Order: sequence, then C-alpha cells, then structure tokens
Amino acid sequence: MQPNLYNRQKEPLLIVISGPSGVGKDSVVNRMRERGLPFHFVITATSRPQRPHEIDGVDYIFVSQDEFQRMLEHDELLEHADVYGQQKGIPKEQVRQALDSGLDVVMRIDVQGARAIRALFEDALLIFLVTQNEDELVRRLKERRTESPEAMKLRLDMARQEMESVDDLFDYCVVNADSQLDAAVDTIVDIINAEHQRTKPRKVSL
Amino acid sequence: MQPNLYNRQKEPLLIVISGPSGVGKDSVVNRMRERGLPFHFVITATSRPQRPHEIDGVDYIFVSQDEFQRMLEHDELLEHADVYGQQKGIPKEQVRQALDSGLDVVMRIDVQGARAIRALFEDALLIFLVTQNEDELVRRLKERRTESPEAMKLRLDMARQEMESVDDLFDYCVVNADSQLDAAVDTIVDIINAEHQRTKPRKVSL
Repeated sequence: MQPNLYNRQKEPLLIVISGPSGVGKDSVVNRMRERGLPFHFVITATSRPQRPHEIDGVDYIFVSQDEFQRMLEHDELLEHADVYGQQKGIPKEQVRQALDSGLDVVMRIDVQGARAIRALFEDALLIFLVTQNEDELVRRLKERRTESPEAMKLRLDMARQEMESVDDLFDYCVVNADSQLDAAVDTIVDIINAEHQRTKPRKVSL
Repeated sequence: MQPNLYNRQKEPLLIVISGPSGVGKDSVVNRMRERGLPFHFVITATSRPQRPHEIDGVDYIFVSQDEFQRMLEHDELLEHADVYGQQKGIPKEQVRQALDSGLDVVMRIDVQGARAIRALFEDALLIFLVTQNEDELVRRLKERRTESPEAMKLRLDMARQEMESVDDLFDYCVVNADSQLDAAVDTIVDIINAEHQRTKPRKVSL
C-alpha cells in the first residue's frame, strides 16, 4: 500500500498565462491577483516605457536598457525576449523563491516566452488565452490606442501565426471573451485545481 | 490559421468515478445528479439484490441472474464484472446514445470495471476517489452494516490492493472526506471543466 496516497504532497505548479497581444493577459492575471488567490504572481522585468496607470514593481519591474543588459550578462533572467524592440525577462531568483515557498507560480508572458519556459520546464502548465473571434482581437488592439497602425498590423499577423502553434505548445486553451473576464478566470482556477489532483503531478524545479 | 481554434467543437467525455468499496462512489455520483449537472449518468445493470432505498432504473437496473446471462450472450454490455459473486455491467447501447447526444457521460464503477473501460477507451477520464485515511474507510464500511465481517475484511484487502494501482490506471485522485461531499463534487466538476479546455481533447467513440 502506498502511504503517500492519503495526504499527498502538493507539488507547486509553474503556470504560464499566454496568448496574442490584445487578448487580455494583463486583465486576466490582474483579476486573479484581485481575488487574493494563493499564488505567487511573477513580476516581469522590462525595458519598455511605463504606460499610464502601470505601477513599477507591481505591473512590471521597469528597468533601463543598460540595467536590462546587466541582468542578462549576470544570467539573472530565467527567459528573456525582444518583442517589437522592447525587452522583457523573468527574474530567476524570484521564481526560485516562489517555488521554494510551495506556492503555485503564475507568470504572464507572450508566446515566445511561453516557448522558452516549455523548453526549460517540460512540466510547466501552459495556458493560451483566445478571444471569441478575430474581430474581438482587432477591436481590443484598436482600443488600446498605444499602437501605430503598422505596429497593430504586425501584432495581428503575429497573433495569427501564434495561434497555429497552440496545440503543440500549450496544455489548455481558455476563451477570454468580452465582458466574460470572470468566467475566464474561473476556468483558469478550475484548471489549476484539477491539475493538483493529477495522479502524475507536474514537477518543476529550479 | 486554424479556423477551429475559435469556437472549438466540444468533445463529450467518458468519465469514470471509481475507488474502493466504502469510499462513497454512490454518494458522489448521486450528489452530481442532484445538482442537475448536464451529464448523462449511466445506470449500471446488476444481478445483486436491491438494497433498501435503492430504486430500480435510477440507482441500478436490477436484473435476475438469467437476464444478466442473456445480456452477456447478446453482447449488450460494454464491460461486466463479477464482484464478490455479484454481477454488474454497463449497457452498451445506453452509453452509445449518451455520447451521440454530445453529453459528457458519467459512470460509477469499481476499479476492476475502470480497468476494463481504460482497455476499451484509452482516452476515458478516470477519477479515483479516496478517503482521507484508512480509518475513515473502515468506519464507513462498518456503518454500511450490509457486510459480514468476512466480506468486510475482503473489501478492505481489496481496497489496499487497488490503491497500489492508482497512479498507473487513473488520471486524477480526489479526496472524498467525511462531511466534505460537496468539496469532492466541486473538485470533480473542476476537473471536467478543465478537461474541456485541453488543447488535445480526449476522444472516445463507440
């Protein structure tokens, strides 16, 4: 008889929330945070300019290009990517501490970053967000108003390309429809709960 | 671009709720049914005597030994098992119709039956129920009062044996603790919701 079947040890999960630009990764992760769920939310370091309403150290760790370069050179980043000329990266030590604390770790990254995480951790839990349809994605990108028409076209082309690789790269696909943010978050929480009941738990270590 | 990524077709799941005698398979499935969840609940045919409070055609389809034999000979059962001298089987046509209707199918069967279902359907979703500890299981078996001490010892030995094969056979393991029936049902519903978001859905056909 397996003594560990009763009261199994809970393995912390490394959860990646990803998807194309405009799908609502920030909204989803912010809502998860607002709910006070018992996860560690990773804060990405970026060299891109701070947007209005974004708080340094909460939404992102905003650093200069020079500081980002220093972090790269000192191997302080778990993964990093250059997206549309803006650099983002995940501080390694932050993730290590979070996993060591036994908490599930949630990170919001683009598809390029999700691919890097999968290469590092086969057992990472990768969730891809989609809108209900492409029109919804286009409208959200337009509403953002931070993009030039050229940048938006680039993002839309990229989104189409990214969606082709969903099935190979990601474990789950969750719809984040207009006015259904809480439903999307509920589904993600269901997925995390379910994953903790697997007879073969995912194992990540850093 | 994959046109089916938006508005994916939902694949019906074949869900097996299993576990040792006394773990509360009936209670869990009955509570799922009471909640009016949109599943088809398979009704097992059995040649064992009807217990008080059990309703024919609801809890089980109670048949004579002769009728059970006839069903077997006409290949009308998806799987069947002889458990402690009592025969149980799942009517094939019932499951086929349920899956064709597009509904998730829920069946409550013992571990022997779960193994038979896995052999038939690699993509079946197998959930194993456990109590919090062995004392809880022993107490529940005693409270049932339908067992002789010998039968109970047999069931307990069997439970210990079954728990050894959990990780190889089952996809998920859910605790059905005393006074926590709704929590167990919530977790099962989370698992089903999560499974419907998989990028590689399970596929069963009959």
